[in-house]
Amino acid sequence: MLTQDKQQRNWQPIIKAFEAVLGKNGVIKRREELITYECDGLTSYRQRPAVAVLPRTTEQVAAVVKICNQYSVPFIARGSGTGLSGGALPLEDSVLIVTSLMRQILSVDLDNQRIVVQPGVINSWVTQTVSGAGFYYAPDPSSQIICSIGGNVAENSGGVHCLKYGVTTNHVFGLKIVTPEGEIVDLGGQIPETPGYDLTGIFVGSEGTLGIATEITLRILKSAESICVLLADFTSVEAAGASVSDIISAGIIPGGMEMMDNISINAVEDVVATNCYPRDATAILLVEIDGLEVEVAVLKQRITEICQQNGARNVTSASDPETRLKLWKGRKAAFAAAGHLSPDYYVQDGVIPRTQLPYVLQEIENLSQQYGYKIANVFHAGDGNLHPLVLYDNSVPGALEKVEELGGEILKLCVKVGGSLSGEHGIGSDKKCYMPEMFNKVDLESMQWVRQVFNPQGLANPEKIFPTPRTCGEAANAMNHKQFEGVERY
Amino acid sequence: MLTQDKQQRNWQPIIKAFEAVLGKNGVIKRREELITYECDGLTSYRQRPAVAVLPRTTEQVAAVVKICNQYSVPFIARGSGTGLSGGALPLEDSVLIVTSLMRQILSVDLDNQRIVVQPGVINSWVTQTVSGAGFYYAPDPSSQIICSIGGNVAENSGGVHCLKYGVTTNHVFGLKIVTPEGEIVDLGGQIPETPGYDLTGIFVGSEGTLGIATEITLRILKSAESICVLLADFTSVEAAGASVSDIISAGIIPGGMEMMDNISINAVEDVVATNCYPRDATAILLVEIDGLEVEVAVLKQRITEICQQNGARNVTSASDPETRLKLWKGRKAAFAAAGHLSPDYYVQDGVIPRTQLPYVLQEIENLSQQYGYKIANVFHAGDGNLHPLVLYDNSVPGALEKVEELGGEILKLCVKVGGSLSGEHGIGSDKKCYMPEMFNKVDLESMQWVRQVFNPQGLANPEKIFPTPRTCGEAANAMNHKQFEGVERY
Repeated sequence: MLTQDKQQRNWQPIIKAFEAVLGKNGVIKRREELITYECDGLTSYRQRPAVAVLPRTTEQVAAVVKICNQYSVPFIARGSGTGLSGGALPLEDSVLIVTSLMRQILSVDLDNQRIVVQPGVINSWVTQTVSGAGFYYAPDPSSQIICSIGGNVAENSGGVHCLKYGVTTNHVFGLKIVTPEGEIVDLGGQIPETPGYDLTGIFVGSEGTLGIATEITLRILKSAESICVLLADFTSVEAAGASVSDIISAGIIPGGMEMMDNISINAVEDVVATNCYPRDATAILLVEIDGLEVEVAVLKQRITEICQQNGARNVTSASDPETRLKLWKGRKAAFAAAGHLSPDYYVQDGVIPRTQLPYVLQEIENLSQQYGYKIANVFHAGDGNLHPLVLYDNSVPGALEKVEELGGEILKLCVKVGGSLSGEHGIGSDKKCYMPEMFNKVDLESMQWVRQVFNPQGLANPEKIFPTPRTCGEAANAMNHKQFEGVERY
Repeated sequence: MLTQDKQQRNWQPIIKAFEAVLGKNGVIKRREELITYECDGLTSYRQRPAVAVLPRTTEQVAAVVKICNQYSVPFIARGSGTGLSGGALPLEDSVLIVTSLMRQILSVDLDNQRIVVQPGVINSWVTQTVSGAGFYYAPDPSSQIICSIGGNVAENSGGVHCLKYGVTTNHVFGLKIVTPEGEIVDLGGQIPETPGYDLTGIFVGSEGTLGIATEITLRILKSAESICVLLADFTSVEAAGASVSDIISAGIIPGGMEMMDNISINAVEDVVATNCYPRDATAILLVEIDGLEVEVAVLKQRITEICQQNGARNVTSASDPETRLKLWKGRKAAFAAAGHLSPDYYVQDGVIPRTQLPYVLQEIENLSQQYGYKIANVFHAGDGNLHPLVLYDNSVPGALEKVEELGGEILKLCVKVGGSLSGEHGIGSDKKCYMPEMFNKVDLESMQWVRQVFNPQGLANPEKIFPTPRTCGEAANAMNHKQFEGVERY
């Protein structure tokens, strides 16, 4: 059906209109050049768009979106393409609006602790820009050296430090956006609280379905006086989990608290060789503490004691930046390292109440055995945000389908214990069919009211988030669980 | 016009329908009993509703709202009626849905740090419920011993501790709401992050225009090991303001940081006699520090030094709960105390970037002289949330109008320096005409799209927040600056 649409559409006047706004260099239309954009981090699904455009300014984005509206062409915004839920997966008959030339830091206001950036700015650049003055930007996805702030806003990205400091939405003061109809609108402001409806809050995490952010005002934080990373080595996952609970129960909120299991530890050591992680540990905890020097010293002592009481074989710590970075490097490379364990891997992202950790990890182990796939576990333990990595070989016929089914079982388990379908990777294309596991019909409809009102033609990132892409013309096609119609499978 | 509507409306079948749901005791219809509900904390405007109803359950609220829809009757939710912007001001031809019988704590889950409450539960009860186990609820408006959680959610209330811990929206995990059409919908969940659009975030602060929250899941925090309150005494407002900037610049985020000027200090001492506040100080800062004992000791030292470097005459501190409470009691009683300085007072609520504090305070002093009204200043200095209290006598003809104009000038000043119309009291009836100062037409329309889609008949708290109550039938009546049509003035 989509192919047919494409055959019917005459792209020549549309491309000409884009070129008038962006110049010939700003429009990519050759099929071999478009291969770069055929998927995001969810590499198991690929689809080249008809055209990709590279605007540099808010006005250019607005002009492009207006052209899309004029010709009723769907458009999908894309940052660095590191998203893991297929939020930036193109449709065949669509325009990809790529923000990678929108990489200006527009203003820095240290006194009021804020920075205004274009959406293509890379996450780690924000901290680099202000670190000399003693500031940093808190949300730090593992992909922070390549992922873009625009993508972080779209997916409401998290990271290691979100346990203490919150996810992206807690760090966005305001946005300039281009609406799905091409209007330029300011949401929020230059300070945390603004009156009226919190449209900034609803935009963050809306995965490109409510428009495209073109200027983003972020909160920056003052760097802590002292930082220390502890590594605790356990002979059981339960003991590591119990330590996490006990640390939080003691009223301690570490900067980050991550767990890695034996499979992940060895994958990381094989690939990035931190030489810090004990290869024979069943699980390790990485706990970062930040604050005043005296505070860090006391917390280091307390956390060490809690881990020892739970049977940790060993607790080591690092305060110097070099060793700290090395300890985190392994954790941040865990997904990539899993890629060396098997030809393919599938990252899941679910959240559970912390108290359910031991039960859920055991159930994931049971599912692993039942389906016959190894699962590596590496996750934000402090906030119950799991990232099971299912290891498989995509060249085996039917493997992807089985792995997706297994991933779905894990998500259902998360929801069953009072958790959530996603902690930080978004719903995108990948998980939209599971939304009804978590939300009933009325709940989902309430969200789609918002989508419809901002995105009445349904052109902004269609077929994402919701099982029913309920645009004005499609209201009847309720609760369609079929995904990826017309999209090539790899 | 409203009077005419009322004459036309036959309330008998509506009241009968309410009584069938709530019993006769659940429906208040006698004019002399309705006087309780004629205003909220914005006492200068009063209007009795036609009827008030007192539901006890979500289902009863839904049934009441469905009856309102059936008869096209506007309805306004009301908690304890302490709001300061007239968010719960009735219309003559309306039903007031009062939540004061919805006062159950529905569940407490200490392990996962959450509590589920009905909307009529008083703010301070939440902390009382969990304090024995070492927990507390962070948002603490001055009215916390009487204001309700439902009202806090409606107005996205703040308080002294919001500098460090954030306002209400940062502490609501999920909501059960009754939509303006009487549907029961769950927003968010039992954990901080849920996928899809952040409807919880948009509901919090929507002032009853998107429905009525009937179950609220709140985050509770572990109480700090140590708390200390510092009182620094200054001979100039500038010195106090510079201390605030320097404390924040030093990377310290106190639990709370409040400033009171000489007028406020003396008002408080006259009324509640803390005997702690120096009556001859031009300004005082109250700074609460919480954390580990060692951390509090170091911060106390650093903050004291910063205040002294800025010329503080004296810095005292209190760690024992009794003295701490006494120090805060004065601050929390400041609004009430102002009532003893003059027959009436008008509280303004605006936000400015912290760096603009000295300039804005001087401008407020200039406005005070220009208009000939004394202004007491007491405010959340750390987050730039001002609360100028304009002292006046309402029995003088024209005084209220002049004071409102003065209040408007202060708001415009806040917006001019990059701030906001409201920090924590909401827009309500009081400030809706100033929304165009902060938002342009397209920005305001974007918010109203959301209102229209949730509230298509416009029955849920009409004539609040937006200068144009843009219901489906009223889209033409754009940017109407007239407020309170048909509402009696006192």
